[in-house]
Amino acid sequence: MDHETAARTTLIRSASDAGSKVFATILTQSPISRIDIARQTGLSQAAVTKAVAPLVAAGLVDAPPVSQRDGTPGRPVSPVSIVRGAMVMLGIKVNVDEVIAVATDLSTRILVDERRTLTASDPDTVVGAILEVVASLSDQIGDKAPSIAGVGVSVSGDVDTSTGIVRESTLMGWTDVPLGDMLGERLGWPVTLENDVHALTVGEHWFGMGLGTASFAIVTIGRGIGSGLHLNGEVVTGAYGVAGEIGHLPLASPELVCPCGRRGCVEAAASTGAIESAVSRAHGRRIRIDEAVRLAHAGDPGAHAAFREAARIIGTAIATLVNLTGPEVVIIGGEGVSDFDLFEETLRDAFQAHAFGAAARCRIVTRPHTFQDWARGAAAAAIQSLVR
Amino acid sequence: MDHETAARTTLIRSASDAGSKVFATILTQSPISRIDIARQTGLSQAAVTKAVAPLVAAGLVDAPPVSQRDGTPGRPVSPVSIVRGAMVMLGIKVNVDEVIAVATDLSTRILVDERRTLTASDPDTVVGAILEVVASLSDQIGDKAPSIAGVGVSVSGDVDTSTGIVRESTLMGWTDVPLGDMLGERLGWPVTLENDVHALTVGEHWFGMGLGTASFAIVTIGRGIGSGLHLNGEVVTGAYGVAGEIGHLPLASPELVCPCGRRGCVEAAASTGAIESAVSRAHGRRIRIDEAVRLAHAGDPGAHAAFREAARIIGTAIATLVNLTGPEVVIIGGEGVSDFDLFEETLRDAFQAHAFGAAARCRIVTRPHTFQDWARGAAAAAIQSLVR
Ligand SMILES: [Zn+2]
Ligand SMILES: [Zn+2]
Repeated sequence: MDHETAARTTLIRSASDAGSKVFATILTQSPISRIDIARQTGLSQAAVTKAVAPLVAAGLVDAPPVSQRDGTPGRPVSPVSIVRGAMVMLGIKVNVDEVIAVATDLSTRILVDERRTLTASDPDTVVGAILEVVASLSDQIGDKAPSIAGVGVSVSGDVDTSTGIVRESTLMGWTDVPLGDMLGERLGWPVTLENDVHALTVGEHWFGMGLGTASFAIVTIGRGIGSGLHLNGEVVTGAYGVAGEIGHLPLASPELVCPCGRRGCVEAAASTGAIESAVSRAHGRRIRIDEAVRLAHAGDPGAHAAFREAARIIGTAIATLVNLTGPEVVIIGGEGVSDFDLFEETLRDAFQAHAFGAAARCRIVTRPHTFQDWARGAAAAAIQSLVR
Repeated sequence: MDHETAARTTLIRSASDAGSKVFATILTQSPISRIDIARQTGLSQAAVTKAVAPLVAAGLVDAPPVSQRDGTPGRPVSPVSIVRGAMVMLGIKVNVDEVIAVATDLSTRILVDERRTLTASDPDTVVGAILEVVASLSDQIGDKAPSIAGVGVSVSGDVDTSTGIVRESTLMGWTDVPLGDMLGERLGWPVTLENDVHALTVGEHWFGMGLGTASFAIVTIGRGIGSGLHLNGEVVTGAYGVAGEIGHLPLASPELVCPCGRRGCVEAAASTGAIESAVSRAHGRRIRIDEAVRLAHAGDPGAHAAFREAARIIGTAIATLVNLTGPEVVIIGGEGVSDFDLFEETLRDAFQAHAFGAAARCRIVTRPHTFQDWARGAAAAAIQSLVR
């Protein structure tokens, strides 16, 4: 990190509450006038002007040219903008078989990307792969590398952001892995560790579909089933770091044991693995998800029943989430979305059967998040951690 | 409403965003210094001083005496306080068989209370009973009656606060009842209609156990099962007015049909009515809750099994709520809490069996809310509606 980037980082981190709010508002809504910033943050215009000045001086925010009339910069109606290139953030999504990484600017626009297949999913192998992709990204961005300000890493499961520990990740097979420290020591940048769906939610909230929505939930379907909640303008992270664990709600038959060890979890009936097991059982041989999808499309009853049961449980789980938290819209993402036609009807029926009263008005839409979107979410989480 | 109360109401309602925040902070944390208000709201001290001045002038806030040194009131370190008696609020809780009402000051301290048994639960009968209790409260507070600024009314079910319509209340047997208008026309005060558990949550958040807790949930058990969520410092009300419907999560057997018409709802297995049905079935005669409790305490196996099944479903529902939203503490209230010994062990076991990772650290405590607490919650909702 060069001197300039370090100074910018320190400025943002040490900002007052008002300063943080102003920076976050410019970051996500740039260009925006000081009057609108004041309106949205509830701060006085004087307070906004005071908070903007050091951001401009540090090169993080662009202010309009000095006014002709009175010689003072920063007339309240002229818009100010984030300097997107003022910092580079790295975002890394750890999957069970692959590490996906991006370098982004401050608006999470992707500059370059990189991925590495994992030969194993133990922590040391993953750390090694992350070091490689980071080195490659750093090479690729060349003279911008000194402006890398931090690294966001996202992993599925119960992740303690404050200590950088992955407490429980069924998908990775990890318990109490201090990934934040393992990486921080070798990378030399601040590392923000975050649950993958929370990170995706931060990305949608700050820079994606969530912008302009008072409340939304992201539900991801596929190998893992997770959710992220954004209510009253904030991501719900849980008092103890756990929230949005829709994959482990006890909505399925108690006879099904989840990979997490609990009984009746949604994932035990509706994850890609659960669908594979059901179709394999029906056919008496090992069938993987690609074949299960083909079979279902060809009208195979066993495959059809497996997708229908998964869809019923997911629709019921979404009704559960909506009855409790009442979001405006639920965005379904995750790799399972590419076969959403096999889920849609049953999922919507189950949702309508259990949604309570006006909560049934909640829209359910899909968005095929790419793997890069997940890595971008990790970069967004790293940017957010600066502002907090 | 006298001229002074009308002017105070207008001042609060028409306040800027900053003004509202300052008033809400003084209201809930009085006495508090201007410096602390600035710190908590993120406003500048100048903005706080500017917002406090009209509140003092209107008699809503007490400021310290004029400083000796410089003759200006409002030195930032001297605390300001809410004038509790500046307004009176009425709070009314509508039950299926009774209307409970209180008159409170601005800190929801109860001045007087009143109740009326309902001979029927149709809207006209309820409106009649509310008019009676309001007249009685008004009489009892005598010369304070002109400072009544509003009436909060809380009802179980899907309540649209913005239009004042009870959209669906299974407990009352109501659909689309415009209770807000029915009352507003005859009472002559602004009426705030709110879901009963949301209102209780507002009361706990502003003036009760929730103070100082970053996030909490209230779960009420008894004739109805409901919940209120307070996350990231705000009550979750739902984009379409529905949230916290823990009583209608599909966690019970789909063979059970809930009074709401849906299948497998928590209430269908765990409400007072469901327990009564189960014990009645076991004994082949109609048994009411008081007898069911006595039987369970005496070791009757049928009664025991009914409470155990209810407790298992409620514990599972609390784990569901906690896995999704991660509160710091769950407060169990409602009239069912008086027999919590019959629920506790099974409830906690079911919660632990399904709570995911660190979410299991969430504390579960009970609080026996009196009927007056519910009415107080309605008054709190009315006060909150002024500030919004
Ligand atoms: Zn599980
Ligand atoms: Zn129901």
